[in-house]
Amino acid sequence: MAERGGVFRGVSVGPGDPELITLRALRVLDESDVIAAPDTGAGEGTALGIVADRIGEKPVLDCAVPMSRDRAAALAAYREHADRICAVLKRGKSVAFVAIGDVTVYSTFFYLQKLVSGRGYPVEVVPGVTSFCASAARLGIPLCEGDEELHVIPVGGGDAKTALSLPGTKVFMKAGTALPAFTEELRRLGLADSASLVANCGMEGERVYRRLEDAPGDLDDYFALVIVRG
Amino acid sequence: MAERGGVFRGVSVGPGDPELITLRALRVLDESDVIAAPDTGAGEGTALGIVADRIGEKPVLDCAVPMSRDRAAALAAYREHADRICAVLKRGKSVAFVAIGDVTVYSTFFYLQKLVSGRGYPVEVVPGVTSFCASAARLGIPLCEGDEELHVIPVGGGDAKTALSLPGTKVFMKAGTALPAFTEELRRLGLADSASLVANCGMEGERVYRRLEDAPGDLDDYFALVIVRG
Repeated sequence: MAERGGVFRGVSVGPGDPELITLRALRVLDESDVIAAPDTGAGEGTALGIVADRIGEKPVLDCAVPMSRDRAAALAAYREHADRICAVLKRGKSVAFVAIGDVTVYSTFFYLQKLVSGRGYPVEVVPGVTSFCASAARLGIPLCEGDEELHVIPVGGGDAKTALSLPGTKVFMKAGTALPAFTEELRRLGLADSASLVANCGMEGERVYRRLEDAPGDLDDYFALVIVRG
Repeated sequence: MAERGGVFRGVSVGPGDPELITLRALRVLDESDVIAAPDTGAGEGTALGIVADRIGEKPVLDCAVPMSRDRAAALAAYREHADRICAVLKRGKSVAFVAIGDVTVYSTFFYLQKLVSGRGYPVEVVPGVTSFCASAARLGIPLCEGDEELHVIPVGGGDAKTALSLPGTKVFMKAGTALPAFTEELRRLGLADSASLVANCGMEGERVYRRLEDAPGDLDDYFALVIVRG
């Protein structure tokens, strides 16, 4: 039989601007006993920073995971976080894990969700505004119209050229330090004019380049994405 | 020189549940003088229905476009809507066009945006929660993790088999009356077990099938989408 206890919720807090959070996310944060966060830097650009004013003095569980490629270290960190989360849930308290953007898009929440759910605790997910929707809005351009397709591609893992051959709009995410080489490749492919770049959308240090052509070549922000239309 | 006047804003109101709207969308609706809507049925499942309680007695411009394949009729309708919107903007009043989900994803807003912007009026866009993020949240599944790709494909326009061969998660949208034939094809391809179907997410008549296998074969709701993982 499942243990009785609190609910574990993945709460999307939007792409950066505190005004781009939903009413439901705010309600769930208010109703949660403990906040869990993938990054406990309280500054701009972190999920916790976005909701800092809202959560006040609620206890915060640090659920950071080492950035290294060491899979075993990451798994050990997830297990440890899940232990601490379940200890709270077991006392009948609820935990809200805050995720920047939308929690179903590249958040670490679902690694924890599997572990917590496997121990019999109920899990819920609150959707939010993705960084790619916010960036398109900031640029004033559609992501897809009519019968167009939309492709979201992480830069690190794949083959940019294959992705660029897909029909419709391509959004390239998670470039970070790979961004200069990637934008250089787009320039070489003659796409600097049809691609746009938005870094830190709605955060401090926001930079918006309607034409990649106009962006400096050395941008390597973590929260940067490139949109290629058509 | 650009005409002086009000601002035309595309306002995303989220996928259906009135609680999945952002603070910014609410503020912009409050500050707008006139609401424009792509569908003026005030019931569930329309952008106007989602915000009906919020906009009170504000005047509403009907910006419906005939559903027919007649391109000329659609263009004539857009021009007529743009004329009426610009007449309001010219008086210094602002107009908020409400769009279900996120306005950069398959909304008719950008057809009007081009016409209105071409006449020199400022345009702004407020992002929102997409139906595919809300549906994944409702299912409690991620859309993409790690280095996975995410592909959003309208069912009507393309080749489902080609799309299904793409790596990562595939979201099939805008199926409507094509949905029974499409889900039948997924069954034939042996994907009924790895696909999920959500219809009318967060609206009246919501139906959630974690396994397409369990869904009735005759579903043809307009607001339905199929998510195929892996």
